[in-house]
Amino acid sequence: MKERKLKKRNLKDTPALVIAAFGTTSNGKAAYDIFDTSVRAYFADNHAQIVWAYTSEIVREKTGSPGILQALASLEEHGYRKAVVQPLHIVPGTEYQELADMCSDFPGMRVVMGETLLHRWQFVDDVISAVAQDFIPEGINVIVAHGTPLCADPANILYQGLDYYLTHKFPNCFFATIDGMPSMALVLKKIAAEKPPVKRARLIPLLYVSGLHVEKDLLGESQSLKANLETLGLQVDYLSILHEGGSFVKSLGFYEEVRSAFINRIERALKLLYYY
Amino acid sequence: MKERKLKKRNLKDTPALVIAAFGTTSNGKAAYDIFDTSVRAYFADNHAQIVWAYTSEIVREKTGSPGILQALASLEEHGYRKAVVQPLHIVPGTEYQELADMCSDFPGMRVVMGETLLHRWQFVDDVISAVAQDFIPEGINVIVAHGTPLCADPANILYQGLDYYLTHKFPNCFFATIDGMPSMALVLKKIAAEKPPVKRARLIPLLYVSGLHVEKDLLGESQSLKANLETLGLQVDYLSILHEGGSFVKSLGFYEEVRSAFINRIERALKLLYYY
Amino acid sequence: MKERKLKKRNLKDTPALVIAAFGTTSNGKAAYDIFDTSVRAYFADNHAQIVWAYTSEIVREKTGSPGILQALASLEEHGYRKAVVQPLHIVPGTEYQELADMCSDFPGMRVVMGETLLHRWQFVDDVISAVAQDFIPEGINVIVAHGTPLCADPANILYQGLDYYLTHKFPNCFFATIDGMPSMALVLKKIAAEKPPVKRARLIPLLYVSGLHVEKDLLGESQSLKANLETLGLQVDYLSILHEGGSFVKSLGFYEEVRSAFINRIERALKLLYYY
Amino acid sequence: MKERKLKKRNLKDTPALVIAAFGTTSNGKAAYDIFDTSVRAYFADNHAQIVWAYTSEIVREKTGSPGILQALASLEEHGYRKAVVQPLHIVPGTEYQELADMCSDFPGMRVVMGETLLHRWQFVDDVISAVAQDFIPEGINVIVAHGTPLCADPANILYQGLDYYLTHKFPNCFFATIDGMPSMALVLKKIAAEKPPVKRARLIPLLYVSGLHVEKDLLGESQSLKANLETLGLQVDYLSILHEGGSFVKSLGFYEEVRSAFINRIERALKLLYYY
Repeated sequence: MKERKLKKRNLKDTPALVIAAFGTTSNGKAAYDIFDTSVRAYFADNHAQIVWAYTSEIVREKTGSPGILQALASLEEHGYRKAVVQPLHIVPGTEYQELADMCSDFPGMRVVMGETLLHRWQFVDDVISAVAQDFIPEGINVIVAHGTPLCADPANILYQGLDYYLTHKFPNCFFATIDGMPSMALVLKKIAAEKPPVKRARLIPLLYVSGLHVEKDLLGESQSLKANLETLGLQVDYLSILHEGGSFVKSLGFYEEVRSAFINRIERALKLLYYY
Repeated sequence: MKERKLKKRNLKDTPALVIAAFGTTSNGKAAYDIFDTSVRAYFADNHAQIVWAYTSEIVREKTGSPGILQALASLEEHGYRKAVVQPLHIVPGTEYQELADMCSDFPGMRVVMGETLLHRWQFVDDVISAVAQDFIPEGINVIVAHGTPLCADPANILYQGLDYYLTHKFPNCFFATIDGMPSMALVLKKIAAEKPPVKRARLIPLLYVSGLHVEKDLLGESQSLKANLETLGLQVDYLSILHEGGSFVKSLGFYEEVRSAFINRIERALKLLYYY
Repeated sequence: MKERKLKKRNLKDTPALVIAAFGTTSNGKAAYDIFDTSVRAYFADNHAQIVWAYTSEIVREKTGSPGILQALASLEEHGYRKAVVQPLHIVPGTEYQELADMCSDFPGMRVVMGETLLHRWQFVDDVISAVAQDFIPEGINVIVAHGTPLCADPANILYQGLDYYLTHKFPNCFFATIDGMPSMALVLKKIAAEKPPVKRARLIPLLYVSGLHVEKDLLGESQSLKANLETLGLQVDYLSILHEGGSFVKSLGFYEEVRSAFINRIERALKLLYYY
Repeated sequence: MKERKLKKRNLKDTPALVIAAFGTTSNGKAAYDIFDTSVRAYFADNHAQIVWAYTSEIVREKTGSPGILQALASLEEHGYRKAVVQPLHIVPGTEYQELADMCSDFPGMRVVMGETLLHRWQFVDDVISAVAQDFIPEGINVIVAHGTPLCADPANILYQGLDYYLTHKFPNCFFATIDGMPSMALVLKKIAAEKPPVKRARLIPLLYVSGLHVEKDLLGESQSLKANLETLGLQVDYLSILHEGGSFVKSLGFYEEVRSAFINRIERALKLLYYY
């Protein structure tokens, strides 16, 4: 039982809210900033304490921002005894599971983790519907998720499910992952084998933020998925979005429906925390 | 993590309160009824759900009242997801520890256990001060607690501490336990060896309720502590109290200070539940 | 199993060392500074990372120093995957047990806790021998430890053992605790009952550092143990020690033997960490 | 915490290495012997203690070799307090998970388990590339793994992934499992339906060692996969390899790339053990 000491000073009776994201040092950070603004506005009446924690070690080193352990330790020091940790993760993969372990084991605080964006098949319906508004009707749409390198990770079930869902629901969708199965190599093979040959492709990253992954592995000048598709003779584009005068790859964080979805995840977690 | 399912119907957002007592089929039950009245009055504004659970199997069989598992299971079924379990136990002995294990492991509910009556040395001061008002100045006062049969049970520390405390703070106190150390046999020996011989003794049960233990082992006609002291030549009495037209052995449950103490234990547990 | 991710950057292969102390805002802090100097000198060849963590919330608020959770989270962020946490606690009481729980549960790091000063009866022999050099031969020595407020805390066994040890090994020793049993009230009663009456007493705090406890409860102008003994007609003194131009109550931290003892505790913990 | 007792005699400060294999009483044992030689040569400078443990009960009964519990108990008795257990398992299935549970719970020793051969999709790429050198260009290659009998075992994800990978990456590959899905019955059906009819097949066991499974279920005279394919009219072969004058079915253990891969798994586990 985590409920032990009643600190006599400075105990908070409200839960803290930790947004846990991979993080990025690229300009895709704007997607996190937009969510930060949304969340603070949405929960303004709660006067909730909202902090960010980053899972990428490199991002933490370069920005000095805390990881989940430092974030929880700091909240505990400031008198918080319960928290919701909402990951901005798309699927419940290895990183989500590690976060979950750290949160459930963290001494002295009761933590409820929010579900991921595509935690339920209903969410897959909702999110893909939103993203599908940006599909091209002619040519193909290549949706690319992060993937998991671990073969027996249950997250693979979701990736295989997305492959099945996208290729069966839409007439012109392909699905690949950057770091797992189905691989980009295999999807290139599938696309190359299409009859008649594909002329045009739109790349759609299924990632919260456009970071190094997107810039290099998907859209880079050489050896990227875009470069390989162009070598096959396709014309390749991807969506950009304008925000506060800057141009950004349109990652999931730029979809209002995705931000709303994550706010729903937070509300459900807060509700669990409230009733228990 | 216990916070899992959000039942869509009938979820309660307030904690339930379970009073866990050994139970009794003797008329000493009146002491529990008095506490029940106090607790319901004290927490009337909370509209709290208050239920009793009994740890004595024989009592449950004869009265049909629930044990802790049935009580928690029933509360869970009625939509409660958190509860305070306040034992009416005097010391954190074996039964308290078993209750604690069952509560911390109970699936689906977050339970905080209240501390026992004599959980802290400060409480020993407070409770004994209240009981000491009934000490006789001439003769001896023999305070009798339940005791623990397990040699390495940390509750023994408290029993030894009570022995030391009572014999050093008061000039005419003896301490024994019914089912542990120091035993009634050893205290009889000590009393028999007193010079000059003791003429008079008051027996004071340090139990919440007068039940079989008191009626037989302390005050019974034969082979009881009372009978053995009388055989040594002492005049032995014990306090009775009138309540609603009936006469009861004055056990701890008939002291207002003890009931207030237990209500404080409940408030601290509710506070822990609230902040975490 | 805590051994999971191999951080690709900045992993340390040496253990960190955390000294965990209650902390103080009084000038008794000098005792911690002396130990810090000793430890850094002793482990200079290891190039060990040595940090302090404080268990007193008030001390942390006033000094901005970290608690154990923040200290471990920070070490984990800097690449440490194993640590020894050496508490400067005298007995394995509640605070030691809470520290132990937090350390064994801390995600991502393997932590071995060092034993306390009086963890073994042999250590009681060693430490009391050192302190006994300051006993007065005429009059009485009143050794005062912190004590535990929880009746069933196994630390009480040690306090009772110290009482027995001191009163039997030495002809003129008394033992009391500030916040537990045996209480200062009870020991005052014992001293008052001595025949012939005691004329002189030396107060010897069995605490690492002289802080608020000592200044108020032991040596304060009114309502302290010193004041109460003086009211009984005793002449009361306590040892002071000069250090870097300042005068300090001679608490345990000013005994070289005690500092050596704690360094031995650290070495044993480092050894355990090394072999496992 | 496993770090408890410091045995005063004969404590080893280096980790032991346990190779955990299913085991075999057939002549396929040569594949284990080859690995044993490689491992001892590779870690010769460490002077590491290397022992084998077998998971097959029949093998242990017939050879008197130890299982994992006996191996760890014996190492603990000889003073080892930490160990790497490297399973020669191809996929993280039920047996791997059971080994993992036994290792993480083993009292008194800190154990890190190495990953399996095909733990990551990258490893699937590496190992299949090595095995593919033995594919026949004309006809079909039928790759057969062990499979898992448990429907909800995450290892199924890997088997399904292998099926997808092999059938999409190569123009003439089929995949089946001996004891799971996809079954040999289903793959026979697929092969029988091929147009034009398949004339020739090479059977490639994806098992570390050729044992009873191979000899009976794959290559046996009747009711084996080979016999069933021959009944369909195919000419069926499989690779043999000469080693120290004997002829062996070419199982995974006879590929240098596979042995190197397992040595990498051991090195990663040793690294984890070292940093934590």
